[in-house]
Amino acid sequence: MAPTLSKYVSQKNALIGGAVAGVPILVYLLKKYAATGRPSNRRTTPQSDIKYLIVDKTTAAKNTNRAHVDWRFIKQLCRILKITIPGVMSAEFGFLVLVAVSLAARSFSDIWMIQNGTNIETAIVNNDKQLFIKRLMYFFAGMPIISIVNNVLKWSIGELKLRLRTRLTHHLYEDYLRGYTYYKMNNLDTRISNPDQLLTADVDKFCEMFTDLYSNVCKPFLDIVIYVYKLTRTLGFQTPTVMLGYLVVSGSILTYLRRPTGRMTVVEQKLEGEYRYINSRLIANSEEIAFYNGNNREKLIMLSAFNKLTSHLRKFLEFKVFMGVIDNIIGKYIATVVGFYAVSLPFIDSNSPLSKLSKDERFRNYYTMGRMLVKLAEAIGRLVLAGRDMTRLAGFTARVTEIMTVLDDLNKGKYTRTMLTDSEVQNKKSLVPNSGRIITKDNIIKFDKVPLVTPNGDVLIEELSFEVTSGMNVLVCGPNGCGKSSLFRILGELWPMFGGSLTKPPRGKLFYIPQRPYMTLGTLRDQVTYPHTKEEMQRRGKSDADLAMHLERVQLSYLLQRDQGWDTVADWMDILSGGEKQRIAMARLFYHKPQFAILDECTSAVSVDVEGSMYQYCRECGISLFTVSHRKSLWKHHDFYLQMDGRGTFQFNKIDSSTEEFGS
Amino acid sequence: MAPTLSKYVSQKNALIGGAVAGVPILVYLLKKYAATGRPSNRRTTPQSDIKYLIVDKTTAAKNTNRAHVDWRFIKQLCRILKITIPGVMSAEFGFLVLVAVSLAARSFSDIWMIQNGTNIETAIVNNDKQLFIKRLMYFFAGMPIISIVNNVLKWSIGELKLRLRTRLTHHLYEDYLRGYTYYKMNNLDTRISNPDQLLTADVDKFCEMFTDLYSNVCKPFLDIVIYVYKLTRTLGFQTPTVMLGYLVVSGSILTYLRRPTGRMTVVEQKLEGEYRYINSRLIANSEEIAFYNGNNREKLIMLSAFNKLTSHLRKFLEFKVFMGVIDNIIGKYIATVVGFYAVSLPFIDSNSPLSKLSKDERFRNYYTMGRMLVKLAEAIGRLVLAGRDMTRLAGFTARVTEIMTVLDDLNKGKYTRTMLTDSEVQNKKSLVPNSGRIITKDNIIKFDKVPLVTPNGDVLIEELSFEVTSGMNVLVCGPNGCGKSSLFRILGELWPMFGGSLTKPPRGKLFYIPQRPYMTLGTLRDQVTYPHTKEEMQRRGKSDADLAMHLERVQLSYLLQRDQGWDTVADWMDILSGGEKQRIAMARLFYHKPQFAILDECTSAVSVDVEGSMYQYCRECGISLFTVSHRKSLWKHHDFYLQMDGRGTFQFNKIDSSTEEFGS
Repeated sequence: MAPTLSKYVSQKNALIGGAVAGVPILVYLLKKYAATGRPSNRRTTPQSDIKYLIVDKTTAAKNTNRAHVDWRFIKQLCRILKITIPGVMSAEFGFLVLVAVSLAARSFSDIWMIQNGTNIETAIVNNDKQLFIKRLMYFFAGMPIISIVNNVLKWSIGELKLRLRTRLTHHLYEDYLRGYTYYKMNNLDTRISNPDQLLTADVDKFCEMFTDLYSNVCKPFLDIVIYVYKLTRTLGFQTPTVMLGYLVVSGSILTYLRRPTGRMTVVEQKLEGEYRYINSRLIANSEEIAFYNGNNREKLIMLSAFNKLTSHLRKFLEFKVFMGVIDNIIGKYIATVVGFYAVSLPFIDSNSPLSKLSKDERFRNYYTMGRMLVKLAEAIGRLVLAGRDMTRLAGFTARVTEIMTVLDDLNKGKYTRTMLTDSEVQNKKSLVPNSGRIITKDNIIKFDKVPLVTPNGDVLIEELSFEVTSGMNVLVCGPNGCGKSSLFRILGELWPMFGGSLTKPPRGKLFYIPQRPYMTLGTLRDQVTYPHTKEEMQRRGKSDADLAMHLERVQLSYLLQRDQGWDTVADWMDILSGGEKQRIAMARLFYHKPQFAILDECTSAVSVDVEGSMYQYCRECGISLFTVSHRKSLWKHHDFYLQMDGRGTFQFNKIDSSTEEFGS
Repeated sequence: MAPTLSKYVSQKNALIGGAVAGVPILVYLLKKYAATGRPSNRRTTPQSDIKYLIVDKTTAAKNTNRAHVDWRFIKQLCRILKITIPGVMSAEFGFLVLVAVSLAARSFSDIWMIQNGTNIETAIVNNDKQLFIKRLMYFFAGMPIISIVNNVLKWSIGELKLRLRTRLTHHLYEDYLRGYTYYKMNNLDTRISNPDQLLTADVDKFCEMFTDLYSNVCKPFLDIVIYVYKLTRTLGFQTPTVMLGYLVVSGSILTYLRRPTGRMTVVEQKLEGEYRYINSRLIANSEEIAFYNGNNREKLIMLSAFNKLTSHLRKFLEFKVFMGVIDNIIGKYIATVVGFYAVSLPFIDSNSPLSKLSKDERFRNYYTMGRMLVKLAEAIGRLVLAGRDMTRLAGFTARVTEIMTVLDDLNKGKYTRTMLTDSEVQNKKSLVPNSGRIITKDNIIKFDKVPLVTPNGDVLIEELSFEVTSGMNVLVCGPNGCGKSSLFRILGELWPMFGGSLTKPPRGKLFYIPQRPYMTLGTLRDQVTYPHTKEEMQRRGKSDADLAMHLERVQLSYLLQRDQGWDTVADWMDILSGGEKQRIAMARLFYHKPQFAILDECTSAVSVDVEGSMYQYCRECGISLFTVSHRKSLWKHHDFYLQMDGRGTFQFNKIDSSTEEFGS
């Protein structure tokens, strides 16, 4: 047998030698061929003079770069954990404990497996059939228990993750959907550009990383304690000491050498992000680019971004391969040699109690201890990897903290905007947001010296003053960008006021209907009663029959013919035509009967006669209207007009025959 | 020693027993507590009546569901591989070979490591210091070679991936950026909703999955052949046969039981997608929702989507845990028992050559063979996993194929749109895209009975006819949605024509300036010459001095004061104000001097006097203009007006004093 084996070895050495000699030649040839044949190379010439600069505006990206495992991270983590694990009596805490208990049970199962396995092997080698069968039976009996332990662990980790995610998501939505916070975050504050990403994927990732890290840190610690204790009792302190010492030294060296990885990963993500950005930029501007025939130009930019990315990836790959060689040598092969050496110490030492045992016992001990050493090394390795995961967790913690901070700020009324340049800010007058006063009063809307200012600080109208009482319909006109939408946003309290005072009814009594009306997800009834639910509708004493009348009024009764009438669920945003959506919005207006309503070109796709009867009905139920429209046919329904010319001046006058010329 | 060990074992049994008894109790308590204390449960009542329907419109999602490993997949894969690996003499093919060679070298290295390791262990147990040191030296000598083999493998896989990605990306961009294909894909065709995702992340994923799968399939096949051969030679055919037999049977059973996983993963992705969609929907409609005070309503919808997701995740987790128990028992524990049994066969069999060997040799053989068996089992496991990866690769292959097919179609002039409903389509007249005729002729634009139809089939104007020759400036007016943009899109050849004939100069001689002008990535010079590069500019005999004159003309000379003048690189889209961008667009117009230009509200942020001098200059260099604007001050620069009323009729008349009333 032995000669056969050694023959294999020499055969193999020859084979390995051949392969190893062949590999570098192949590598050399490929590298050389690649340098000339590389597809990206032939085309670099025109791309080489493409220069561009992409300013990374997402604070999240900045945070990931800055994320370090430091006190700040621990404080942030504690803040989030206080939300997700409210106390010792919470189910979440129970799952933390269950995970820890399962991990301990699993470590003990592993040790039992090792010892029982070695026992079985000894029986096989000793050709002791009875002992073999007996021990195999033990093993068989232990199996289901170990399997249950393993899967309770898996279940508790999964369930813990789900619960943390649920807690965190509920907490964040509580803040995000309070008042107008979601609107402010998406439109006024520039700190968070992708709340949907944060609320869905990043929260999920955070919970996953945290639970994984929790079990990946608990388990190795436990294992190290157990195995070091066991190894020391059997082999003496020398073997574990040598092993641990080597692992600490080699771990430090490798961690030191691996440092550039972090930076290179950041660069990789940045370049991937830029490449992705350039692609979506083309999509966002595809019409302009198509009109300019800019496709070849854009192709150069895209290919140059791609080249930048691939050449970095190539550099990174080469670094990783170089580190791989060092890693293999230090972390695997020398570690194995040191392991052999460390284990051999008590066996070769003639003073050790092991030297007095029979060969069988020595074998059994050797393999039991060897396997425990492997487990020990694995545990330490896992702990080192956990360090890397910690950095990633710090990144996600920073992101979740960011959204929590912004939500807190917004709920306190503070918002942050990156202004264009410092000089531009200086040019603008010193404007203080939220310095205006809102007076709540029924049946009147009065602007008193209110400046029309965008959240950016652009002044559209210095001081706007006019007064409208219930029963007066007002037509609002002026070119694009003159401030019509800004006026409504200030009226709807979406934008901060920069001065003056505004008298208006409470929020619920003022309604806004945009040109492209919003349809919510849900039943047909939900579309009409939005934002009321069915329960709220019933509480307010309205019935489906009332709704049907409103639907009749806007000539949409045929929608009720569908399978389930009011309870029909569909993607209404998609299946209704533009005109139908506008009419649903009018029915919604009739249902809510507010004191005032703003109609922002919201009947553009409705026929003139339907439009007329809608205005008639509004007057009947006492809804006063602000209308933005270019249609001449609407003038007769209005008493006043507010005209803004887009250059800072406005007119508020009664409509008479001489003014009717303006419509187009 | 032995009594000590057995004491441990019994200690441990007690511990495991305790832990295992404790775990189910804890699980029971937590499940019970959780059912009442679950945060999501307390709040479900209002959410429970939220019903919604989200129609998945992305064909990509449909494709992933449909992706199967079948003939279609293989054909699609071959089509892509033909692009990425152009031939046997390409570098890519060389890397395929290098990966295979490295894999083979690695398998032989593994075998050498096993045998050498066992040799060292025998020396340790036998207390043979000299042999120990000699064999450790062998091991030391082999290390660097093995390390190099491993890392050449790593490098060649990484490089292969990069090269495939480069080839595929270049190929796709070639098609995507030909003519107006990118515009058509994003605006006319509804099959692909996210080309940026496809071109960046999905292409990358495809290449990664393909190379990983290539090495993950090659290696186990190689390993199985090698290990089965070796084991059969040493242990006889029985052991490998029993092992392989068990692995095949258990593998089939597990694969059968695991079938619901695929479906559940699809549901998980669908629910995650819906949840994400509902989040981004809120962002997209945040203003409308804020005006409606719809936050509580939207919160209910979001929480109900989140609940749907988590309850599915919980069900999935429970299934995975259940499968985990079966997996562990069949795949791990029974497999170990069968392994012990299979290996014990030749040792216990008194006819086997092994029974005649010394105990030492038996031990060494046992451990060598045992490790090879472990490797064999691992190889088979990896092959089973590769089957799962194959399904994922099929998904990405389908996506990449989809974009290739759509690109081909678009480049052939075919485009597909999902119409709203069948009934709506029937209501529309039968319109045939691309049935109009384009006649190329200088200095004239003539619409002859051209219907103004959106790609959706909505008819804005039945037949549009008018004629403009060089020197005539035309003012285009009408309310939003009347067809101004559609007119320009047809004129710019972006939209298909549905009839009539259109006479116009070639593409490059017609310029379009949108309201929010597009700034490309690059230098200041690039902004003015866009889409020309610097080389193209010089080839056309223009110099930086010419550009400076144009910049002077639009009063932007101060931009040249920056650090590097024309070569300043910045994010121009971001740092220029709206008015500056519009003036850059005018300078761009002056640089290109087309025969006709369409100015789409493109001077809205420019002061009246600058505007006036721009119009003056256009007349001087013979650029005829189509202007969309509400500004009265512009009327005097125009000779004709084209008015569309948004109800299907239009007027084309000379401007005289009586018509000047229209501006606002």
